[in-house]
Amino acid sequence: MSRLVMKFGGTSVGDVDRIGRVARLVASELKPGRGVAVVVSAMSGETDRLVGLARGAAGEGGNTPVMAAKDFNDEYDVVVSAGEQVTTGLLALALRRLGVPARSWQNWQIPFRTDAAHSKARVADVVEREIGASMDEGVVAVVPGFQGITEDNRITTLGRGGSDTSAVALAAALNAERCDIYTDVDGVYTTDPRIVSKARRLEKISYEEMLEMASLGAKVLQTRSVELAFAKRVPVRVLSSFVEPGVPNPGTLVCPEDQIVEKQVVSGVAYSRDEAKITLLGVNDDIGSAAEIFGRLADANVNVDMIVQTEARQSGKRNFVFTCPDRDAPRAVETIEAARDKIGVEEIHTRRDVAKVSVIGIGMRSQVGVARTMFSALAQKGVSIEAIATSEIKISVLIDAAYTELAVRALHTAYGLDAV
Amino acid sequence: MSRLVMKFGGTSVGDVDRIGRVARLVASELKPGRGVAVVVSAMSGETDRLVGLARGAAGEGGNTPVMAAKDFNDEYDVVVSAGEQVTTGLLALALRRLGVPARSWQNWQIPFRTDAAHSKARVADVVEREIGASMDEGVVAVVPGFQGITEDNRITTLGRGGSDTSAVALAAALNAERCDIYTDVDGVYTTDPRIVSKARRLEKISYEEMLEMASLGAKVLQTRSVELAFAKRVPVRVLSSFVEPGVPNPGTLVCPEDQIVEKQVVSGVAYSRDEAKITLLGVNDDIGSAAEIFGRLADANVNVDMIVQTEARQSGKRNFVFTCPDRDAPRAVETIEAARDKIGVEEIHTRRDVAKVSVIGIGMRSQVGVARTMFSALAQKGVSIEAIATSEIKISVLIDAAYTELAVRALHTAYGLDAV
Repeated sequence: MSRLVMKFGGTSVGDVDRIGRVARLVASELKPGRGVAVVVSAMSGETDRLVGLARGAAGEGGNTPVMAAKDFNDEYDVVVSAGEQVTTGLLALALRRLGVPARSWQNWQIPFRTDAAHSKARVADVVEREIGASMDEGVVAVVPGFQGITEDNRITTLGRGGSDTSAVALAAALNAERCDIYTDVDGVYTTDPRIVSKARRLEKISYEEMLEMASLGAKVLQTRSVELAFAKRVPVRVLSSFVEPGVPNPGTLVCPEDQIVEKQVVSGVAYSRDEAKITLLGVNDDIGSAAEIFGRLADANVNVDMIVQTEARQSGKRNFVFTCPDRDAPRAVETIEAARDKIGVEEIHTRRDVAKVSVIGIGMRSQVGVARTMFSALAQKGVSIEAIATSEIKISVLIDAAYTELAVRALHTAYGLDAV
Repeated sequence: MSRLVMKFGGTSVGDVDRIGRVARLVASELKPGRGVAVVVSAMSGETDRLVGLARGAAGEGGNTPVMAAKDFNDEYDVVVSAGEQVTTGLLALALRRLGVPARSWQNWQIPFRTDAAHSKARVADVVEREIGASMDEGVVAVVPGFQGITEDNRITTLGRGGSDTSAVALAAALNAERCDIYTDVDGVYTTDPRIVSKARRLEKISYEEMLEMASLGAKVLQTRSVELAFAKRVPVRVLSSFVEPGVPNPGTLVCPEDQIVEKQVVSGVAYSRDEAKITLLGVNDDIGSAAEIFGRLADANVNVDMIVQTEARQSGKRNFVFTCPDRDAPRAVETIEAARDKIGVEEIHTRRDVAKVSVIGIGMRSQVGVARTMFSALAQKGVSIEAIATSEIKISVLIDAAYTELAVRALHTAYGLDAV
């Protein structure tokens, strides 16, 4: 027996007709000796509607919560998790309509366990015995994504986008050959096709590269689901849900590095405009000043990304440059202001019109000159670099946001990624 | 410790504001030493929406099912039962907003067991241990009505109106002092106040009387819920959900006969316009002809009510008159036509403009002259009687539908039910 997990998001199951197409796609994957499970999201719009009801019942006007998160989150999970339950029943019916044996499995029926962190739970344990046996008998299992139950049998949700994680966790528990994530794009591209018309769909990409792509703003797969797939070595395929069965739909396979024979130096160019750059001038040159600054920012829940430290002209002083998501910038500045005397910051500057552009590739590990290519390509276009950060398989630069598209296109060409 | 069960229907929880009022009504019933459970329906309109989706997914256009009920009903139950789950979470949040400790209990968490007759399941067993202990600790339990789970952990629904039955079953399991059914009327009336302006709210009514009232067209409580309350001797109070806490809202108590001190000869006058009268002339006078006719009608799922048999003028022949719900009339006639040769029916007549009017009262058992009062009152108004049926606590007559209001008003006055 082999097993396959397929996952469909909210737009793919947005109405009864689309659910019918999903059923046909599922039917086309059936073959003797293969058990199939399908993880589904709530119909598009439904989760937002339920979230609104839950907030309304709790008395929230606008963004003002009237009760503590601990009093809200468990019953919020009860309310919003109903959306996926509806889709499971509908898809089971649509499959039976095609003559395909199918049944829904709610999380408590499996059981699909998570920790007790309501509204942002993490998957703990998926019991595959009953659901796996039913699949092996040829009955398609339809499972609600984005949710689970605690050890105490309370309902949890995994947080927005958690359905990808549900699918990967189920695939891992079922020891599935693959987890197919059907989405509104037909695969992972070398860069954003809206910016670079010559962007190419990648046939394969490693987990590590996908993680960098996902966390850098290529919103194809939820980061947590890629981390889980990486940890459990579940091959994940990203492909389009908007094709009829029979139409070629190879998608992109996210897989272990050793399954990728031809390693590209650079596999993709990612960008993110949601960045702010904060410069601290004249910080006291104490041994603990960096720990003090970034400790306070972490306490304030500011997600700091790049950090550059330089000597100040004045002796006994240092300068720091760091980036964070744009929405965190005001909080970051407040946090530093509050500790100004202690840290001895002389000036704080914020720039919110910056973007981060990154090149990613596992081939980078064994190649030299990758950074030089990047810097020359940008220099040739007159793009000035505000900060640089590197990892083993990634080089990121911070630039003026107005140059984003220009920089992405230049890099895509420079690394030979343009489609012929 | 005492325990109270409260039940609110779909219109009472139709939006977030109404759910807020329900929360205030629940809060007003809290007192030390009393545990409270609340059974809720889906928000009004929600069940219809979900039923429509389920039918759509199964491919139903209009009234044409494309799959057998056995393939449809279990997943239909999965889809529609999500509606009540949403309300449980919302009410728990609304209660917490008032500072009242509360949590939702899904059927699988209790568990609340039913048989496996999907879409029309019957309650089998409610385990009160955990939910009762939590209530006794002062945490209001919010439970979805209309649904349960089977021994195999599949989701079931009890059929339309099943939430009343859920509430009574829960009250029985919890050994509750009372089950309060909040509805859009403020109690059970001596007759329909839209017809008789002098109709009075009854303070108390016996289970037996309520059963006759409910099945005769007074749509206050679902018949099954009254049967269950009767069997388990659960006192049920019917009262208005559209008042603010503090406003007097006594409702009507449905209780064992022995708790009603002043027994009325007649407690109420009920009527039903959804009736058809079918007359069969010249049926063969065989010993098995009645069994043949009504056996075939039962097989055809025709719900026969009154039956009158008379001698025909012609020897060796009989006449039958029976009534059934108006919508069943064409099927009843077809069924008889198909067996015409065997039964030897000479003529079939159908009248669909008839109504049934009934007087109900447990006092009837020990009183004579009740029927005479009825017949005289109708005769005085010139209402002619087409058929008569009696039970221990009820007398029903079939009349021309045009006389319905006239007859109901005359009987209401004749039995001294008019408010002073």
